Amino acid sequence: MSVYAAPIDEILFSMYDVNNFDAHYKSRDLDRDIVEAIIQEAAKLAEQDLFPLSAIGDREGARFIDGKVVPPSGFKGAYQKYVAGGWPSLAQPEQFGGQGLPHSLSTVILELWQSANQAWCMYSALGEGACETLLAYGSDAEKALYLPKLISGEWTGTMCLTESQAGSDLGLLRTKAEPTESGKYRITGSKIFISSGDHDLAENIVHLVLARLPDAPEGSRGISLFVVPKFKVGDDGSLGALNNVQCGSLEHKMGLKGSATCVMNFDGAEGFLLGPANKGLSCMFTFINKSRLGVAVQGQAQAEGAFQMSRAYAKDRLQGRSPCGEPSKDKIADPIAAQPDIQRMLLNQQVICEGGRVLAHFCAKLVDKCRSKDKQEAAEASELLSLLTPIAKGCLSEWGSEACDTGIQIFGGHGYVQEWGVEQRLRDVRITRIYEGTNGIQGLDLLGRKVLLDGGEVLQRYLDEIHAFTKSCMATDCLAPLATAMQGRLIEWRALNKDVFATFGGRPGHIEAIAFDYLMYSGYIVLAYQWLRIAEAASSKANVYSEPWLKNKFTATRFCFSHVLPRAAAHREAVLLGGEVILSALEGLE
Amino acid sequence: MSVYAAPIDEILFSMYDVNNFDAHYKSRDLDRDIVEAIIQEAAKLAEQDLFPLSAIGDREGARFIDGKVVPPSGFKGAYQKYVAGGWPSLAQPEQFGGQGLPHSLSTVILELWQSANQAWCMYSALGEGACETLLAYGSDAEKALYLPKLISGEWTGTMCLTESQAGSDLGLLRTKAEPTESGKYRITGSKIFISSGDHDLAENIVHLVLARLPDAPEGSRGISLFVVPKFKVGDDGSLGALNNVQCGSLEHKMGLKGSATCVMNFDGAEGFLLGPANKGLSCMFTFINKSRLGVAVQGQAQAEGAFQMSRAYAKDRLQGRSPCGEPSKDKIADPIAAQPDIQRMLLNQQVICEGGRVLAHFCAKLVDKCRSKDKQEAAEASELLSLLTPIAKGCLSEWGSEACDTGIQIFGGHGYVQEWGVEQRLRDVRITRIYEGTNGIQGLDLLGRKVLLDGGEVLQRYLDEIHAFTKSCMATDCLAPLATAMQGRLIEWRALNKDVFATFGGRPGHIEAIAFDYLMYSGYIVLAYQWLRIAEAASSKANVYSEPWLKNKFTATRFCFSHVLPRAAAHREAVLLGGEVILSALEGLE
Repeated sequence: MSVYAAPIDEILFSMYDVNNFDAHYKSRDLDRDIVEAIIQEAAKLAEQDLFPLSAIGDREGARFIDGKVVPPSGFKGAYQKYVAGGWPSLAQPEQFGGQGLPHSLSTVILELWQSANQAWCMYSALGEGACETLLAYGSDAEKALYLPKLISGEWTGTMCLTESQAGSDLGLLRTKAEPTESGKYRITGSKIFISSGDHDLAENIVHLVLARLPDAPEGSRGISLFVVPKFKVGDDGSLGALNNVQCGSLEHKMGLKGSATCVMNFDGAEGFLLGPANKGLSCMFTFINKSRLGVAVQGQAQAEGAFQMSRAYAKDRLQGRSPCGEPSKDKIADPIAAQPDIQRMLLNQQVICEGGRVLAHFCAKLVDKCRSKDKQEAAEASELLSLLTPIAKGCLSEWGSEACDTGIQIFGGHGYVQEWGVEQRLRDVRITRIYEGTNGIQGLDLLGRKVLLDGGEVLQRYLDEIHAFTKSCMATDCLAPLATAMQGRLIEWRALNKDVFATFGGRPGHIEAIAFDYLMYSGYIVLAYQWLRIAEAASSKANVYSEPWLKNKFTATRFCFSHVLPRAAAHREAVLLGGEVILSALEGLE
Repeated sequence: MSVYAAPIDEILFSMYDVNNFDAHYKSRDLDRDIVEAIIQEAAKLAEQDLFPLSAIGDREGARFIDGKVVPPSGFKGAYQKYVAGGWPSLAQPEQFGGQGLPHSLSTVILELWQSANQAWCMYSALGEGACETLLAYGSDAEKALYLPKLISGEWTGTMCLTESQAGSDLGLLRTKAEPTESGKYRITGSKIFISSGDHDLAENIVHLVLARLPDAPEGSRGISLFVVPKFKVGDDGSLGALNNVQCGSLEHKMGLKGSATCVMNFDGAEGFLLGPANKGLSCMFTFINKSRLGVAVQGQAQAEGAFQMSRAYAKDRLQGRSPCGEPSKDKIADPIAAQPDIQRMLLNQQVICEGGRVLAHFCAKLVDKCRSKDKQEAAEASELLSLLTPIAKGCLSEWGSEACDTGIQIFGGHGYVQEWGVEQRLRDVRITRIYEGTNGIQGLDLLGRKVLLDGGEVLQRYLDEIHAFTKSCMATDCLAPLATAMQGRLIEWRALNKDVFATFGGRPGHIEAIAFDYLMYSGYIVLAYQWLRIAEAASSKANVYSEPWLKNKFTATRFCFSHVLPRAAAHREAVLLGGEVILSALEGLE
């Protein structure tokens, strides 16, 4: 009963009409018809191969049999198709066998696969981050040895950070790296929560492992990054013996059951140092920042999936009579989509998944620009991306969970039953609020690092950008009321920043107490801004799209302003008044 | 790793200090030491028998083997203990073997069992509703035959309402009841989502079934209520042959896996009519209203369970350093409870579970008063209970889900892993927002029936009560700022009502479009009122409780006002401005 159809028109609308990918890709010699063809091929993989495996993956789960990890049925075949299609190499450098297409395109495509099968993507998605890190820190020889295989998808990657005593606080990690005579290292320790730590989809797995050198300082300043392959790699690239790294067990999780979440035991496993000694955490952040944008896409993609299922069910399910006429007089009842309360929930999902997509595409463009040859453009893009990453990761994962949860509610009792598939989306997406840094950590990252540390300069620039755009909307009748509301929010946000800056450096813990609410406050305004951009794009393309389609975009924008944006007020109040309350609770702590 | 300890002191505080159960029970000749002894015994059953079976129930699930429903291991033994302890008869009339204790006491106790094992309670809890309905509509002979067995717990009950085409819209149901020569009826049809429709915990199961008589009008005015036992009952009370009613299959659900959710097939099953023909829906509502309060308790109870687990984990888990001093300098890190963002989440859970408890106890008192011999007291209590029931069911189930979800977040990655048990709470509690009328239906019930139909009179009375209480708090220094904030909200609520009444009868669908937001708006103010009552009770008992305990209650009250109550603003805005947006979406519907 479950449905998924890649929303290609909506994706193209977000890219070309809202986010001006025309100009962006023109400067990168990439024609729209090629982009469309690539998206259509990616959609086929999503719809035909990945989506049908999602429920199977949930039911079977990844299993641990005789010391080996067995992914769910069909996962390997889909991975082989993915490799044969050349997908892993899409945005990788041509020098190492990649296709050299913009990173933004791989982010755009990622939505399709994540909507179709989040668990399966855990096997494929981590290789890209490993490439990223090797490209940044590997020697020429290391790159030549590892990158072509990772880029082709013959090998996959992992991130081995967490240990049982070291989660959000990686400074506590204990895994050791001892230098050997050959210039390599022997890694010993146990890592938990390692996604696709072991499996048989690829012929080798490249672990990026955080560990401590013997003379390392304590805490987070004494962590180094190592590359540890599952099978040792000869200087000629040939696969050698199994390394001393093994999966010890799999976690039984709430969702994402098709993904193998491994305990990985390193027992003197051979690896090499990547990047400078004791700088492993900052090297790993190359990987982590990219992953955070990927998590944002997961949240948005699951929202899209839930929205599609809910919309289809609401049109199909006959129950009661609508108070607004009887659209199905000839039937025993009207579809529940004709009930105002169901419409409320559908609009809420739409605001999340379409507004979230526009934000994700905007961030994806910034990823491209970070690599621009124009140094200033690159620096500014990188700063803005740093600012928006915690908002995108934090808020899109929160809202993605909300959209899936709303899906269950739209399905009623059937939403609680597994066969309809909507409850799986909630169980799967729930992890996005936790991994790659919990959303509490995202709040601290946004407020503590991205806003306060630079005196709010980058945020100021972004607010100016919103202001300028909003001002330009004032001249259009249908946008003016929304733009006016937005201007009010901007004034409010700037005032709130003043207040926050005034308390900065004051009572210890105050910033930490208000950071999550600051994150959500910012997120709601950023989301409303995306919808203003959508409405503006729709109004300026009124000749291209059908009237119902345009009307729907305007209604959804207004819904964002009437139902979703107003939630910012509660977070604002918590930022203004709530920090002191929380700190007073901490005083009483035994 | 999972913990649960019955919060007896908190329960007694809510009963005796906040809700004045002293006076209430004095008039019912019930001493506090007896109440305490009963609660302590109920706590033992919860902690020792039910709680250890909760994870087992989730893992094993109810199974369907060779046409028989097999509940999880241990469920039957616990049920036998429950029966042997006389618990089913607690609040039932002495005339039929009950103990005649107040209904409020069984609601108070229900929290303990629901916190311990929500799935198990699905087997035990439905008998009470069946008693209620038989007491109200049964003939003397029917009562004499059925009530003693239901009251002793030897038999259990079910509610057979939903059919695959008839969920929220029961008017669509098709199950038929044909009169037989003996004055009985033959029931034929298929019901879905029947909790504990079949099992081996009790020797007989009494199904309350909605069905249509041959000459019944269409829609909801043509539904009658029938009693259909699993085993036929002889006139002497002896069990006869199996009736023609069978479980066809079990649902595989997101949670509550230990509870058997059955498809029940009636194939000419013998039953008798309960209450007047074609009035089945209103007869069944005796049962449903009681169940709705029970669902409110489930939400609150799961919040309590999640809060306990989260608090214990947050004190235990060492990770990072607190910005507010280093409470565990000698250890590798501070407990995460010392992190402001974790405190924020713990306070949020506390506000939900303790404020929710005070509201549930208040409603429970009203249940007693509905049976008062003083007709006016009974009528007023019944009206107020009708008003508060959708708020309690709707909001406590929403917030209960939120508190469990927050629990997962506090546990971080471990929250997503099944062994810690907190994710089970979210999966179990999720159904409370759906069954016994979805929360969309609760919104319609509150605004459409309870507020608008009587011109807002009962609500007015309740607002006056809040106003009077709030005014009385003004004289106490520590309460005055909270009371002032509350007064502002009351003015705002009354103004909102005016606005809603002005639109009533206007554009079709408007009330339906704003009902859910009106429900949540009301709920937040009602919750803040409960916390004001808690703060008032704490301040007036300053000599009884320890200083840290009192401080914690005040901090939680302030948190409710700084972080939770402000959410009302967004719902208010949706009520004021959002209805029109939703209706505009409906216009565009194909």
